[in-house]
Amino acid sequence: MGKLFHVLEAQQFSKEWLENEFFPLSLEMEKLVKTGEPELLSKYSLSGKRMVRLFWEPSTGTGFSFDIGMHRLGGAVFASDHAGDTAMIKGEALEDMIRRIAAFGPDVMVLRTPKEGMAKLAAEYSSVPIINAGDGWGQHPTQAGTDLFTVKKEKGGIEGLHYVIAGDLRGRTPRSLAYLVAKFPGIRITFVAPVGDQIGDDVKEYLNRHEVPFKEIIDIMDAAPEGDVFYITRIQKEREKLLRSVERHGLVEAHSPKANWKADQGLLRAIKKDAIIMHPLPHEDEIAPELDPKVCKDRRVAYLRQSENKLYVAMAFLYYAIRK
Amino acid sequence: MGKLFHVLEAQQFSKEWLENEFFPLSLEMEKLVKTGEPELLSKYSLSGKRMVRLFWEPSTGTGFSFDIGMHRLGGAVFASDHAGDTAMIKGEALEDMIRRIAAFGPDVMVLRTPKEGMAKLAAEYSSVPIINAGDGWGQHPTQAGTDLFTVKKEKGGIEGLHYVIAGDLRGRTPRSLAYLVAKFPGIRITFVAPVGDQIGDDVKEYLNRHEVPFKEIIDIMDAAPEGDVFYITRIQKEREKLLRSVERHGLVEAHSPKANWKADQGLLRAIKKDAIIMHPLPHEDEIAPELDPKVCKDRRVAYLRQSENKLYVAMAFLYYAIRK
Amino acid sequence: MGKLFHVLEAQQFSKEWLENEFFPLSLEMEKLVKTGEPELLSKYSLSGKRMVRLFWEPSTGTGFSFDIGMHRLGGAVFASDHAGDTAMIKGEALEDMIRRIAAFGPDVMVLRTPKEGMAKLAAEYSSVPIINAGDGWGQHPTQAGTDLFTVKKEKGGIEGLHYVIAGDLRGRTPRSLAYLVAKFPGIRITFVAPVGDQIGDDVKEYLNRHEVPFKEIIDIMDAAPEGDVFYITRIQKEREKLLRSVERHGLVEAHSPKANWKADQGLLRAIKKDAIIMHPLPHEDEIAPELDPKVCKDRRVAYLRQSENKLYVAMAFLYYAIRK
Repeated sequence: MGKLFHVLEAQQFSKEWLENEFFPLSLEMEKLVKTGEPELLSKYSLSGKRMVRLFWEPSTGTGFSFDIGMHRLGGAVFASDHAGDTAMIKGEALEDMIRRIAAFGPDVMVLRTPKEGMAKLAAEYSSVPIINAGDGWGQHPTQAGTDLFTVKKEKGGIEGLHYVIAGDLRGRTPRSLAYLVAKFPGIRITFVAPVGDQIGDDVKEYLNRHEVPFKEIIDIMDAAPEGDVFYITRIQKEREKLLRSVERHGLVEAHSPKANWKADQGLLRAIKKDAIIMHPLPHEDEIAPELDPKVCKDRRVAYLRQSENKLYVAMAFLYYAIRK
Repeated sequence: MGKLFHVLEAQQFSKEWLENEFFPLSLEMEKLVKTGEPELLSKYSLSGKRMVRLFWEPSTGTGFSFDIGMHRLGGAVFASDHAGDTAMIKGEALEDMIRRIAAFGPDVMVLRTPKEGMAKLAAEYSSVPIINAGDGWGQHPTQAGTDLFTVKKEKGGIEGLHYVIAGDLRGRTPRSLAYLVAKFPGIRITFVAPVGDQIGDDVKEYLNRHEVPFKEIIDIMDAAPEGDVFYITRIQKEREKLLRSVERHGLVEAHSPKANWKADQGLLRAIKKDAIIMHPLPHEDEIAPELDPKVCKDRRVAYLRQSENKLYVAMAFLYYAIRK
Repeated sequence: MGKLFHVLEAQQFSKEWLENEFFPLSLEMEKLVKTGEPELLSKYSLSGKRMVRLFWEPSTGTGFSFDIGMHRLGGAVFASDHAGDTAMIKGEALEDMIRRIAAFGPDVMVLRTPKEGMAKLAAEYSSVPIINAGDGWGQHPTQAGTDLFTVKKEKGGIEGLHYVIAGDLRGRTPRSLAYLVAKFPGIRITFVAPVGDQIGDDVKEYLNRHEVPFKEIIDIMDAAPEGDVFYITRIQKEREKLLRSVERHGLVEAHSPKANWKADQGLLRAIKKDAIIMHPLPHEDEIAPELDPKVCKDRRVAYLRQSENKLYVAMAFLYYAIRK
């Protein structure tokens, strides 16, 4: 089944594919949505095609971007937001679930799974393309595609920029972004994370191998004047609890200064005139209310435009998986 | 965004709009469903339109009335019955969720939310029309539309009738009905509720301001000979528990006689020949088994016909929100 | 409502109907899926028809077989995997839920319910055909249809074969299979079950009445050389716990030897060259990893082909319920 176009991890994509195929196709999808041009609709039509979306937990953002994206292209959607319930209640192995559903003849399967590696395992057993829409602490390659597409649109290109990636860096979103952006020449990365949430050694080793300069700091303000893209993420709740318990006992204070990665008016005043602030959403208080696009008209706050791009990128991935 | 046709609370509708636009349109929708006339289908077609239904908790009655209604008009449905899971798990703010999904380009969003005021808040942030299909203890305006449409069909009109609204009057259904029916001349209302479940002061104040005569009693039989419309509701479970605990300690007995709002053969014998018994469903034992339409052929028991009307009313609201 | 084609329990089908109507139709559905022939599509089209799938708990296998099957025939799908939540939260009676949704005009309702008899009860109140996709410990007639269709395809026919039905025989799947296969001449059944999980007396009484020879054993190897169809099932989890607790206290050892119904290489070596091994899935360790079709190419392991047949059989049932 090696010829299927699975979307499993960010590093599977080359710079050339992203620039020559993926970004132009995503732009076409945006045009299709915004103009509804019949030629585009018929050129990219997935009419008669079927997407199965198997999510172990509900996600309205990613879920609806694929559901609505598939429908925009004329295809049919079969979605379960509780695939894990069946699996858990009945003890069904992932391999069996994937093969059983694949036998019903969908044209693509979009998976959100609770554990790293599950999307890859699914691909080994599937007779149809698998799109990994997040596998636990593993990766979220379609989010990384959205993120780079956003940078491309907002900044004109990916190369040569300074990326400040901040927050809970063990999450799949910053991981996938670091893996993907490392393919572009001239970039550098500054990671901002509290103790215990630093970027993983696998990512650092990968960056070293690709000769991408990076550093790790604990206060986003130190990178403010130099950054081009500020990519903020939230602390995963379960981790935050741990962090607070550590703080309560004074351990963080004792061993290291507190981290700061908040996006607020202070940050906005300190960053370049053409920098952008991104966030994969949902956010918590790491984005200050004063930066909400409802009240803040500063174009540098880009996260809602980034969120909209999820739709066009989902459509591009679906088209590739099914038609290419 | 003031020009969007949001459906947020019952009192936003005028008597004129209801009589001249909404009831006739709902009747057209019923005709469309029952005859399948191609001219009606094409006149009211929502083909190519998309509805997102975001429910914080599943509801097969209201949920399917919108899903099937949208499909009857040729539109596409994207439904989540667990929007709250995402929100809670990830701490996503309603404003963000609404804006993110609205950016994917649905034509209407139907919301069931757990807290009063959430539908209004959503409308402030949405670039597409919002239909409030129940916001906690707040309102349920599409149910109120269904209720008045039912009265219109069953009784020939809304004006001049005596409404007996009974049960848990703090629920959103009786609240929305009282707000809406108060717009019609010559009506009066008798509220029947147990201690602790009486109609809210906001409703009473509203009725006073609109000079609608009303009274509060504790035994539905006292209103039986004079009522035209008997609107029965169930006790919300969490409240019932409290009530029982109070009863167990003799407090209700001591301070006030027990309430009675049961619809049974006794009530049926006591009411007028052309009165009707309604219920927003689901019911519990406040409707006696002897009144179930399977065994009771008395036309005055109207609640299943009322339930069917949910479909036509949902279709009318969807059409207004999307096409008007 | 006696004229509706409800699918409620396996024994409602006659041998003649299965052989002359149901198997040929299921084969046609398979051909339709595999060839996409336009004549077949238009012959069996359910375009404009609506299926409501009401599941009290999610099931990706059975659920998607009906959803995708309905869509393959051109029909529309409205699915809830959490019908029970509404019912439980609000205390709604099944009869009301069924009548309310039926009033919205679906053409068929597919139900998975938690308690034996609920599908039958639903049929009594429904104005549209009901398909029972599992009612608690009751029956699972569409699975039984899938099972016999698989035997027909794999073995050329149902008659005269020796069925070895093993595992948790109180489950609805083996029960429905036994009820259905008993209609065919010349068959015999060997039941293999641990203490406490034996086939029910109602089934035995039925087999006696239909003069079907059967015996009960506790080691599948004893039936290996003579069986034609080995139908393995998993222990339902709640029951397994009980069993283990009994074993831990030595009670099983003391009163009866341990049961063995595992399908592994040992079984495969011992059975006939043209026997088959089936399983309704999902499986646990009663199917050894060495028998997984990924590594075991032995054609006698038929359970994934059996699973694929769910789609064709669902389509056949849907067509019968809606169009016949």
